Amino acid sequence: MVIVMASRKREDIDYVVKKVEALGYKAHLIEGVERTVIAAVGDERGKSRLQSLEALEHVERVFPILKSYKLAGRESHTEDTVVDAGPCSIGGKQFVVMAGPCSVESREQILETAHAVKEAGATILRGGAYKPRTSPYSFQGLKEEGLKFLKEASEATGLPFITEVMAPEQVPLVSQYADILQIGARNMQNYGLLMAAGKSNRPVFLKRGMMSTINEWLMSAEYVMAEGNASVIMCERGIRTFETETRNTLDISAVPVIKKLSHLPIVIDPSHGTGVWTYVAPMAKAAVVAGADGLMIEVHPRPAEAFSDGAQSLKPERFAELMKEIRELVELSGRTLKADTGAAIGAGTK
Amino acid sequence: MVIVMASRKREDIDYVVKKVEALGYKAHLIEGVERTVIAAVGDERGKSRLQSLEALEHVERVFPILKSYKLAGRESHTEDTVVDAGPCSIGGKQFVVMAGPCSVESREQILETAHAVKEAGATILRGGAYKPRTSPYSFQGLKEEGLKFLKEASEATGLPFITEVMAPEQVPLVSQYADILQIGARNMQNYGLLMAAGKSNRPVFLKRGMMSTINEWLMSAEYVMAEGNASVIMCERGIRTFETETRNTLDISAVPVIKKLSHLPIVIDPSHGTGVWTYVAPMAKAAVVAGADGLMIEVHPRPAEAFSDGAQSLKPERFAELMKEIRELVELSGRTLKADTGAAIGAGTK
Amino acid sequence: MVIVMASRKREDIDYVVKKVEALGYKAHLIEGVERTVIAAVGDERGKSRLQSLEALEHVERVFPILKSYKLAGRESHTEDTVVDAGPCSIGGKQFVVMAGPCSVESREQILETAHAVKEAGATILRGGAYKPRTSPYSFQGLKEEGLKFLKEASEATGLPFITEVMAPEQVPLVSQYADILQIGARNMQNYGLLMAAGKSNRPVFLKRGMMSTINEWLMSAEYVMAEGNASVIMCERGIRTFETETRNTLDISAVPVIKKLSHLPIVIDPSHGTGVWTYVAPMAKAAVVAGADGLMIEVHPRPAEAFSDGAQSLKPERFAELMKEIRELVELSGRTLKADTGAAIGAGTK
Amino acid sequence: MVIVMASRKREDIDYVVKKVEALGYKAHLIEGVERTVIAAVGDERGKSRLQSLEALEHVERVFPILKSYKLAGRESHTEDTVVDAGPCSIGGKQFVVMAGPCSVESREQILETAHAVKEAGATILRGGAYKPRTSPYSFQGLKEEGLKFLKEASEATGLPFITEVMAPEQVPLVSQYADILQIGARNMQNYGLLMAAGKSNRPVFLKRGMMSTINEWLMSAEYVMAEGNASVIMCERGIRTFETETRNTLDISAVPVIKKLSHLPIVIDPSHGTGVWTYVAPMAKAAVVAGADGLMIEVHPRPAEAFSDGAQSLKPERFAELMKEIRELVELSGRTLKADTGAAIGAGTK
Repeated sequence: MVIVMASRKREDIDYVVKKVEALGYKAHLIEGVERTVIAAVGDERGKSRLQSLEALEHVERVFPILKSYKLAGRESHTEDTVVDAGPCSIGGKQFVVMAGPCSVESREQILETAHAVKEAGATILRGGAYKPRTSPYSFQGLKEEGLKFLKEASEATGLPFITEVMAPEQVPLVSQYADILQIGARNMQNYGLLMAAGKSNRPVFLKRGMMSTINEWLMSAEYVMAEGNASVIMCERGIRTFETETRNTLDISAVPVIKKLSHLPIVIDPSHGTGVWTYVAPMAKAAVVAGADGLMIEVHPRPAEAFSDGAQSLKPERFAELMKEIRELVELSGRTLKADTGAAIGAGTK
Repeated sequence: MVIVMASRKREDIDYVVKKVEALGYKAHLIEGVERTVIAAVGDERGKSRLQSLEALEHVERVFPILKSYKLAGRESHTEDTVVDAGPCSIGGKQFVVMAGPCSVESREQILETAHAVKEAGATILRGGAYKPRTSPYSFQGLKEEGLKFLKEASEATGLPFITEVMAPEQVPLVSQYADILQIGARNMQNYGLLMAAGKSNRPVFLKRGMMSTINEWLMSAEYVMAEGNASVIMCERGIRTFETETRNTLDISAVPVIKKLSHLPIVIDPSHGTGVWTYVAPMAKAAVVAGADGLMIEVHPRPAEAFSDGAQSLKPERFAELMKEIRELVELSGRTLKADTGAAIGAGTK
Repeated sequence: MVIVMASRKREDIDYVVKKVEALGYKAHLIEGVERTVIAAVGDERGKSRLQSLEALEHVERVFPILKSYKLAGRESHTEDTVVDAGPCSIGGKQFVVMAGPCSVESREQILETAHAVKEAGATILRGGAYKPRTSPYSFQGLKEEGLKFLKEASEATGLPFITEVMAPEQVPLVSQYADILQIGARNMQNYGLLMAAGKSNRPVFLKRGMMSTINEWLMSAEYVMAEGNASVIMCERGIRTFETETRNTLDISAVPVIKKLSHLPIVIDPSHGTGVWTYVAPMAKAAVVAGADGLMIEVHPRPAEAFSDGAQSLKPERFAELMKEIRELVELSGRTLKADTGAAIGAGTK
Repeated sequence: MVIVMASRKREDIDYVVKKVEALGYKAHLIEGVERTVIAAVGDERGKSRLQSLEALEHVERVFPILKSYKLAGRESHTEDTVVDAGPCSIGGKQFVVMAGPCSVESREQILETAHAVKEAGATILRGGAYKPRTSPYSFQGLKEEGLKFLKEASEATGLPFITEVMAPEQVPLVSQYADILQIGARNMQNYGLLMAAGKSNRPVFLKRGMMSTINEWLMSAEYVMAEGNASVIMCERGIRTFETETRNTLDISAVPVIKKLSHLPIVIDPSHGTGVWTYVAPMAKAAVVAGADGLMIEVHPRPAEAFSDGAQSLKPERFAELMKEIRELVELSGRTLKADTGAAIGAGTK
């Protein structure tokens, strides 16, 4: 932690030095041309109390030197994490494609979509049974019935499936069905949910909050990991900006940033990232070559009749075209769309 | 809902008109100079399915005409809502000041602070027992013990108290102690929590998410109200922008906007809004004259030793000065800091 | 400047230390628990070359300690700057109100408005003769003819006037007519224009860019001051955020921030800040008590017929009501709306 | 234009209808369930006066149906524009790479860099002679001397060159030397500069403002085109958001959006877009497959000694590696890095 003093008076400096030492740090003084700086040496993590020194009258600013995450950080774990989910592994040589409808609307709809995306080459099925909706009057999902339909579609196609979990008490139930637990953008800092997912035996797919810095996002991964669950997959799905031509601004640079700061895999969701189906394909392709470990893409047999997110959903035939274009790029990047053969369905976190 | 067509071909227009009618709306065609527009007449609320028409190839854009909230809106309820919390009422003639530490750190600390803020003229005590923290390694609050200390401080001073509830399962316990339930900015779209609070018999203090639009914020109030709890208090606490001199950008214009769109009371939190104690007083004063119904202010006896948010906390003596300045402005606005006398402690939602 | 090393190897550290010293700084080494930090002591201002050290492979981050502005900073000039403009002075005991139409549309319109705002108590007339418009097809202003009408209205009412200057070559001409030169938000980093205004003998009214941090804004003031013109007035007019209920988000906290960091006066423009006339009055009042030195408010005799910005313009009678409300708050703050008497019209920069 | 009424009273509606008709539009009334909407039919472009109807008391909102740009829009010009610059053409089959230092620092530096980027396969040389700098104390560029060095480097390598023009009066001089005129992000709404560039005979490279919407950016292209210069190249260089791990947030989705809305070519600048050299390569590759027409990349022989932007500059050897990776992706996209042979140096706008 570096403390920039507003005062250069000996007594003001001594006062802060004493405070720093009282918190268990060593204080180093550096007298600059116009400012005196105090470097507080010691493990500053989780020590927001040091930050409280900004309340002192003669302190101008306090800024941290260390990253605040540990388990999620590249430093403590230099090798890439590979998360297993049934026959798939995320973060290794395989490039995964998670596809399916925003919401599970009926047994027929999810079965039809599952077969279509499987046919086109998707490796994981997605679909929402519990739906976080801005309006209390909107369709809220089929809930456990939706989980059952997803399970059936998963078994029928051999695709493991991912679905959203919205509250801590849903974790045990959803874990019985799903191969991967998704935590949505609005819940990225729902700490009770993060801890519950951290106690489950399923991989956790952590969407970036639309208002969240990459640092905060990694801190949320840290919450899951601190409970003992190391299988975390990061998912960038667009951040909120002033631009309105797209629903969100898809921050593809999050891919190299996460790869640098962390060992966790990262997946890109261009459907939510853009909100417009015509923009999904170019952004999906961009994500592949930027180094993402996978994609999450909304596919619906009849987007204009979708209960939610129709405008950003691809029809199965368009999704199939996209898969063709992606295949080349995946191979050019030295990766493969193929899952390891012979593995049984059912999530296996490492 | 207004649908702007990308095509002017009769068959494309007919196709969309048919889709609109199939969803139960009447379609009105307007042929403009360069565009054809279809107005879909009918109650569009909660009907995101109409929005899915954007997925159609010949549709350029779909935009809603009606506000998506009903119970929270000024139209369905033209008179201002006044929320009762013990001896206080929020949204009426009384201007409330909620003050206290970010976290309850010990019995002594909360008692000392409660007496100090009461002395200075605060009308409601605040303090966190359950603390949402970015880091899993930071102080997470004293939990139920903290609630007990708050209750004791509340009884000792006669001030009702407000405290944060972070998960649906905490609602019954916290409701036993607290006069007002606070839902934090990070949980503004934690729908399970909103519904649980909506089922409680306590007023709900709903902080605006740091990257939430006013429309989304009112939709979250709608979630609480749709469960039968009409006692919602909105709280603006700063939104996230690119500016870094302040922790957030306090959007004081949310006061007149909420007053226009909704009948719910609105309170300003200049402590989180600025993150810097020296900026708290000017922004608190600004909030009063902009028409806010109250303030929430962090006060700590020794900010530099606070477990959290020290940099934005006022010392009791500064808070007392601020109260003096505010008093004049409150009176000038035709309001009063005084609570109605004779009322018992304990929340009474209307 | 503080340099956080990514490597702890002696040779990597030595290499960076040598680079730091080659740029003329003294290097201080601080060995932390997990990081080595190099403090570069010396005057770092204007030395972006030191920032280029971030390009070195073993450097994690470089961050500056000193503020990058000097002349605009509070440290080099502890007393508040008071800018004179004809009979008015901005930044002292007088609270100024600049009022008038967005655009000068005709001789009659500006004369009518000038008399109306004078009557209501405004102290400075505003009006645009050169108009920066998003569309090349929109009304671009009456140009020099507009300046003549403004001058006539100014002489008829005794109010000095402010008007926008959009290009360096307009500065001499506009300076012949206007008492204060306004630099618009879109031109805040038009450095040629800043330097031209810095060479003029008129006070410069510098609007904050809608995308600009307070630090960048002060750096733009520094550009004007570095040319010898110390009479700079800062104007906050709203920043761009994701919120759409208001045209911009008016950052009233810029008032105490500028007061802390700088000695320059600051004026608030709630018309552009909100974009909606019904929100102008509450935000204007908030600005007064937050400590602003003045207001800039758009007034138009017939807003619905305005060539530009009609939606945010007040009618003269509403402006008169606002002036009444403001007067009380100004006096409560120990200031006055009155200009010093006896002073002649015509700007006098100090 | 669609006008949503706040009132349903006949007289209020009639009043607005009359206003609409007085501005030359036909008014169509649509009576909805809860709102009355007036559709104003007529060419609304450049008619911000219609927007001023929002000032009327009984009007809730006014929103436009038509795009506000014409010449820059895809509708008026369905074929892709191809801009010629010496031997290169931008927007057609050729994929261009503009490379070179942020600032021209010396004759040797620009010559060395020009040869290096030519060797690696770049097709256009870039370098700043006039530098917009946040601080008046930073290096401001070599000005005309820099242009001469660029011209020499251009002739020595056969690469046409692009350089920034900061003020209208620089346009004629810079046009004598440069093949393409760059307008920087801070000047995107410097309308005098846009008009001057519109009158020149050089292609204009228009960087997106860091907080500009795509609509505003296209309106700025419209300013250039309205003066008769149809050779405009759009450049996305990152927008400002709350994220701080990158200097800006590179909005790659601007590529498909611009391709949909406009016929103009679009180039991506991942150097400014990320601000960190290690992130440049993945984002450059992403831009290629997303459909961009070219890249602009900062290359400096010794980034750590750069006068500006060192942290985001590539060393020549890294740039050469990047070119190899890009080549494959360009070919996979059915394009080529090769310029048409036999063409003479010297810009030829179409």
